[in-house]
Amino acid sequence: MRLTDDHRSFAATVRSVVDTQINPYVDQWEADGIFPAHELFPQLGKYGLLGLEYSPEDGGEGADHSYTMVACEEFGRIAAGGVSMAINVQANMATPSLAKYGSPELRQKFLKPAIAGEMVAAIGVTEPDTGSDVSALRTRATRDGDDWVITGRKLYITNGVQADWVCLLVRTSDEGGYRGMSQIVVPTASEGFSVARKLDKLGNRSSDTAELVLDQVRVPVENTIGTIGRGFQQQMEQFVIERMAAAYSIVGQVDVALEKTRDYLLQRKTFGKALAQHQYIAFRLTELAARNDLLRHHNQAVCEAVLAGEDITRMASIAKWEAGRLVREVADMCLQFHGGIGYMEETWTARMFRDARLASIGGGADEVMLQVVARIDGYPLS
Amino acid sequence: MRLTDDHRSFAATVRSVVDTQINPYVDQWEADGIFPAHELFPQLGKYGLLGLEYSPEDGGEGADHSYTMVACEEFGRIAAGGVSMAINVQANMATPSLAKYGSPELRQKFLKPAIAGEMVAAIGVTEPDTGSDVSALRTRATRDGDDWVITGRKLYITNGVQADWVCLLVRTSDEGGYRGMSQIVVPTASEGFSVARKLDKLGNRSSDTAELVLDQVRVPVENTIGTIGRGFQQQMEQFVIERMAAAYSIVGQVDVALEKTRDYLLQRKTFGKALAQHQYIAFRLTELAARNDLLRHHNQAVCEAVLAGEDITRMASIAKWEAGRLVREVADMCLQFHGGIGYMEETWTARMFRDARLASIGGGADEVMLQVVARIDGYPLS
Amino acid sequence: MRLTDDHRSFAATVRSVVDTQINPYVDQWEADGIFPAHELFPQLGKYGLLGLEYSPEDGGEGADHSYTMVACEEFGRIAAGGVSMAINVQANMATPSLAKYGSPELRQKFLKPAIAGEMVAAIGVTEPDTGSDVSALRTRATRDGDDWVITGRKLYITNGVQADWVCLLVRTSDEGGYRGMSQIVVPTASEGFSVARKLDKLGNRSSDTAELVLDQVRVPVENTIGTIGRGFQQQMEQFVIERMAAAYSIVGQVDVALEKTRDYLLQRKTFGKALAQHQYIAFRLTELAARNDLLRHHNQAVCEAVLAGEDITRMASIAKWEAGRLVREVADMCLQFHGGIGYMEETWTARMFRDARLASIGGGADEVMLQVVARIDGYPLS
Amino acid sequence: MRLTDDHRSFAATVRSVVDTQINPYVDQWEADGIFPAHELFPQLGKYGLLGLEYSPEDGGEGADHSYTMVACEEFGRIAAGGVSMAINVQANMATPSLAKYGSPELRQKFLKPAIAGEMVAAIGVTEPDTGSDVSALRTRATRDGDDWVITGRKLYITNGVQADWVCLLVRTSDEGGYRGMSQIVVPTASEGFSVARKLDKLGNRSSDTAELVLDQVRVPVENTIGTIGRGFQQQMEQFVIERMAAAYSIVGQVDVALEKTRDYLLQRKTFGKALAQHQYIAFRLTELAARNDLLRHHNQAVCEAVLAGEDITRMASIAKWEAGRLVREVADMCLQFHGGIGYMEETWTARMFRDARLASIGGGADEVMLQVVARIDGYPLS
Repeated sequence: MRLTDDHRSFAATVRSVVDTQINPYVDQWEADGIFPAHELFPQLGKYGLLGLEYSPEDGGEGADHSYTMVACEEFGRIAAGGVSMAINVQANMATPSLAKYGSPELRQKFLKPAIAGEMVAAIGVTEPDTGSDVSALRTRATRDGDDWVITGRKLYITNGVQADWVCLLVRTSDEGGYRGMSQIVVPTASEGFSVARKLDKLGNRSSDTAELVLDQVRVPVENTIGTIGRGFQQQMEQFVIERMAAAYSIVGQVDVALEKTRDYLLQRKTFGKALAQHQYIAFRLTELAARNDLLRHHNQAVCEAVLAGEDITRMASIAKWEAGRLVREVADMCLQFHGGIGYMEETWTARMFRDARLASIGGGADEVMLQVVARIDGYPLS
Repeated sequence: MRLTDDHRSFAATVRSVVDTQINPYVDQWEADGIFPAHELFPQLGKYGLLGLEYSPEDGGEGADHSYTMVACEEFGRIAAGGVSMAINVQANMATPSLAKYGSPELRQKFLKPAIAGEMVAAIGVTEPDTGSDVSALRTRATRDGDDWVITGRKLYITNGVQADWVCLLVRTSDEGGYRGMSQIVVPTASEGFSVARKLDKLGNRSSDTAELVLDQVRVPVENTIGTIGRGFQQQMEQFVIERMAAAYSIVGQVDVALEKTRDYLLQRKTFGKALAQHQYIAFRLTELAARNDLLRHHNQAVCEAVLAGEDITRMASIAKWEAGRLVREVADMCLQFHGGIGYMEETWTARMFRDARLASIGGGADEVMLQVVARIDGYPLS
Repeated sequence: MRLTDDHRSFAATVRSVVDTQINPYVDQWEADGIFPAHELFPQLGKYGLLGLEYSPEDGGEGADHSYTMVACEEFGRIAAGGVSMAINVQANMATPSLAKYGSPELRQKFLKPAIAGEMVAAIGVTEPDTGSDVSALRTRATRDGDDWVITGRKLYITNGVQADWVCLLVRTSDEGGYRGMSQIVVPTASEGFSVARKLDKLGNRSSDTAELVLDQVRVPVENTIGTIGRGFQQQMEQFVIERMAAAYSIVGQVDVALEKTRDYLLQRKTFGKALAQHQYIAFRLTELAARNDLLRHHNQAVCEAVLAGEDITRMASIAKWEAGRLVREVADMCLQFHGGIGYMEETWTARMFRDARLASIGGGADEVMLQVVARIDGYPLS
Repeated sequence: MRLTDDHRSFAATVRSVVDTQINPYVDQWEADGIFPAHELFPQLGKYGLLGLEYSPEDGGEGADHSYTMVACEEFGRIAAGGVSMAINVQANMATPSLAKYGSPELRQKFLKPAIAGEMVAAIGVTEPDTGSDVSALRTRATRDGDDWVITGRKLYITNGVQADWVCLLVRTSDEGGYRGMSQIVVPTASEGFSVARKLDKLGNRSSDTAELVLDQVRVPVENTIGTIGRGFQQQMEQFVIERMAAAYSIVGQVDVALEKTRDYLLQRKTFGKALAQHQYIAFRLTELAARNDLLRHHNQAVCEAVLAGEDITRMASIAKWEAGRLVREVADMCLQFHGGIGYMEETWTARMFRDARLASIGGGADEVMLQVVARIDGYPLS
């Protein structure tokens, strides 16, 4: 697909938001171990950045998916991975099911304020014993009249400390495996809901990640998103969007890292010439730039497939897999070629090295992506 | 870019030509060390496959570049790399300059029959001492009235034994370096022109590759393509097309190889289960399939850039670099997972292993591609 | 372990044999698709090179394993992989079980002439349907009085056309799996024994590789090596020696390849300087030289473990795995940096590229080596 | 080389010290950003671990280099890379020149207490503008009677906050380049000596790393180690020891990481089976275990070369290069296969990921190692 002037103008707007509303503050947010979602999100909401593809009826922009790609790529330029991750959760991971399958009332109550940035959303799938294996999920919602009564634990929940509501995947029957799950909007102010702890992570420190405990939390059955019992399937759709949001962002993140590194190497001299003149260094970084272009164009192809209404499971899994591998290698090499200074905690290279490591784990580990694609391609893996 | 039904229908036609006119014969051609260009090319000419983008005035199809991409991808499915390479030379490497810069008379005399498949064309750039360094070229055309008198040697010339004419890059002045070169159409029947030897290559054996000797070969100055002295620049443009033709073909070649390998592994059992059920094997092949998709979509983006009239030097160099690396690794892994049988000379895996090795050398070595991209990206390499 | 002057003097002798008795002829042998084992082996026998560790009683040298390591490394310098492979089969793959477990009569009859180079030996394990899975072996020896009557097929048998006898692994009971196998010396002149075909391989062309057919071949039970029913275990021991012979040779092969490539790059100029001055090229080749040193020293540690009488299964599998991967990458890169000339069939780079490819398949594929080591390390793989 | 029972008994002692005196406290030291060198080192001194190879006359153990190898490997098992790095600096990086070239008086005053663990030592080479390029060093000692007056800055100095003295490399003439440098013992209590700042690093947080400022620091000329003007050469020797200490330690570090990861994967189940049963995971980790064995045996060969008095520059540079690459990949993969929990800051995987990253930078970056080896191997790199 070809980006239009309209895309470019939109990109410039997002970049300006990033440069003025976000990047000047991320060092502080990193030090704090949390960013002020309830301050930042309303500002993003003003620019429509939290509901690009959602219906104007719900406060969304009604734009097509290509604007999500452009926005994510620009968010990738945020100088702390935790912030772009948190925005992606709000805009592309916690809300798509609600937007697509939610009832008008539910959308009015939870989606609209999320799009406006007034409510912070989180997505609650992973549990202490599940890892990438969603079928092992145990949190249980039992029906009691018009209410669900929910008990269980959720782990590694981005925005988990600040969230106003969580799009929670729970079991609503005893069928087991992939069956009998539902997606339920759970307000965090509900009785019995608590944040067990804020997790201290290797990177993405400006993002609050939490372990959540639900002890007999009561929410109306009306809070169910879409069909009772179809939660797994709906969540799988939501995961696919999540993978692409991650892959889109990484292209922007890699662009910035390689630009900054080249500029550093142009002025840093050893053994009488600029480091950028060392062929080995230049070639290694060029290889990574080349791979980023391959990913960029693959992402564009996925975007076109989304616009055409096609199933993108395979393509999105490939994008997520390569994006995770690429950004890790880029972080690693940019740090390497900065030498000692690159290892100092205050530098962007150290932060990126810590942040980028999550890309091959969060949102489905690399090995899960390979499993998904291998099966689609006809390998009968158990 | 999205492929249309028209593209798909065209692809089916090309595939049918490959399956019926080419693949049944390639084993013989490989054994012969040459394919019958003067028999095969007229057949391809009938389908318009040798002049897809050229003007109908010259016998071309007047199609846009996307059809070249589709055709090359299908040619990649030819069961001997030498044949697809030879076709690519005729259609996309030896003729683009002539089509774009050649005078009407020259096009009438040499391009039209090449498009029809009646004349076989070759491209003569590399010399014994130049390798990938075109600036070191020494073949010299000296003006004598209305004629050029040309003396020199050209090496590794695909179609070199069977060619009726060669698009020759020579020096027409003493300026040296990248200056003062011209492209000249040299009929191989000219006095003083000879094939020094047919080269015996590791792979691509069905393709005749030659060392050519020009000893005082006299051709009219009118045979010059475009502007005298602009040969290097015109050839660089032609190289860019060549790189893409190679990259397009490789996507098709990889598709076939991975399909065939998976099918073999599904039926081959060791240690009680199909090889295709071994996770390590399945994942390694899936990684390669994923990379092929990244390349495929990058190629499509290049194609769109061509259609938009943009300079694709950087993108094409990236495509060529990755294509060469990928096809080599695919050939290597497909052979590996076939085990002993894969090492037998009569199998497709052995042939592909030999053929694919050229991809990172021919048309500009990987290191030249990295050099090109690194410089564009701002690395001041000497 | 430290090499002594005695080792170095021995290495010089072997190198001289390689340089005068072998390398001048390998081009012809490659063209012939076979080397004259009955001419070459007696010459090697004269120098004791076919029975270094075997008992003087059997005509061996009674040397320790370190001399095998030194000899193999020198054989790695042979300019055609097929010849060193054939020698390794004779000296280290087909004879160790016989030397260790064979009866005095059997050793007198078959080992002594093999050590002298008067008889050519082969090792017959792999079958058309087994690949690396020895437990799937089907060739069956049925007892008839004092004879075995053997029927079956053996595939990929090195020296298979010229062999005078084969150390054959067969089933001597119906227990199945890894049980009930025996090693039997089968003279190829036996009635019912035939060479079904000489295999045409991608590389190692100077080595004759065959498919063998045994149709009711009758040999005395006395030809059994060691204990009836212990064939699998004995063969596994023999395989471990085989792996090391391959790994030892590869160190020598890589040394030569890197030396020759550096020398070529020192005199080959592009873009105004020697290719050897390009940092990227120099570093890539240096990385490979470094890996060869790691392998060399690992090999020496294995050698010491052999001398100390330890089980080297894990170490040898690691050596074989890395050796295969390394020699392939070395062959690939040496060809790459030679450019076009490296792809010509007459060059050593093309031959090495074809020869080296077998290293990760023959003698147990890389994946089998990983499986062996993984299990030893406690991974419960099925 | 073969390890003896004496080596094994010594290793057990060191391991016991690590397990009882160090590992129980490292979490606190990591949190503190410093370890108590003046408490820990005397304890190590009691066991002779800070002067294994040094003369008993200076309080050393008079052991041979193999004990250094064994000790470093055990120090690699310390649960925080910063502590083993600090010990290595004291034992193998800051003191070798002094031990070898220092006058009896100087050794008495500075080496003896360092070996006893009563004085903490540091090595001061790198400066803000030098990186791996020692020839760019600018700190200057000017002679004034019997004193040196030293002014300059040193960066990335391990033990820099706690050190009692620094083995400082400075210019003592104006010759420039690699000439005219000297090694001088500078007590940190000297007037004009100050710690500009304690550096906050990505990892190895329990180790204090500092930027040091010398402003007209006056020390006796007698504090010069060895010959005035030979400082660069003496430091290069010292660097070679440093490289090996790093490589030895990494073998132990990798052993522990792979053991712990396997044990975790054996009990962690997803998709119905233990993660350790997934072939892809098991093979990837086995590949790393295999590489660690290659490095281990290479290290042993280097150790033997040291014992034989040979120049180990090439071998040590190879060891350092591979060790850095390996430990980074091991840290990366161990974290990956732990999944989400591996990304939590409190886990050993996150710490190792941060710590291990330094290995390819500190003590000479990978690219410097390649440069050293490439030149020795005959590549004329500028």
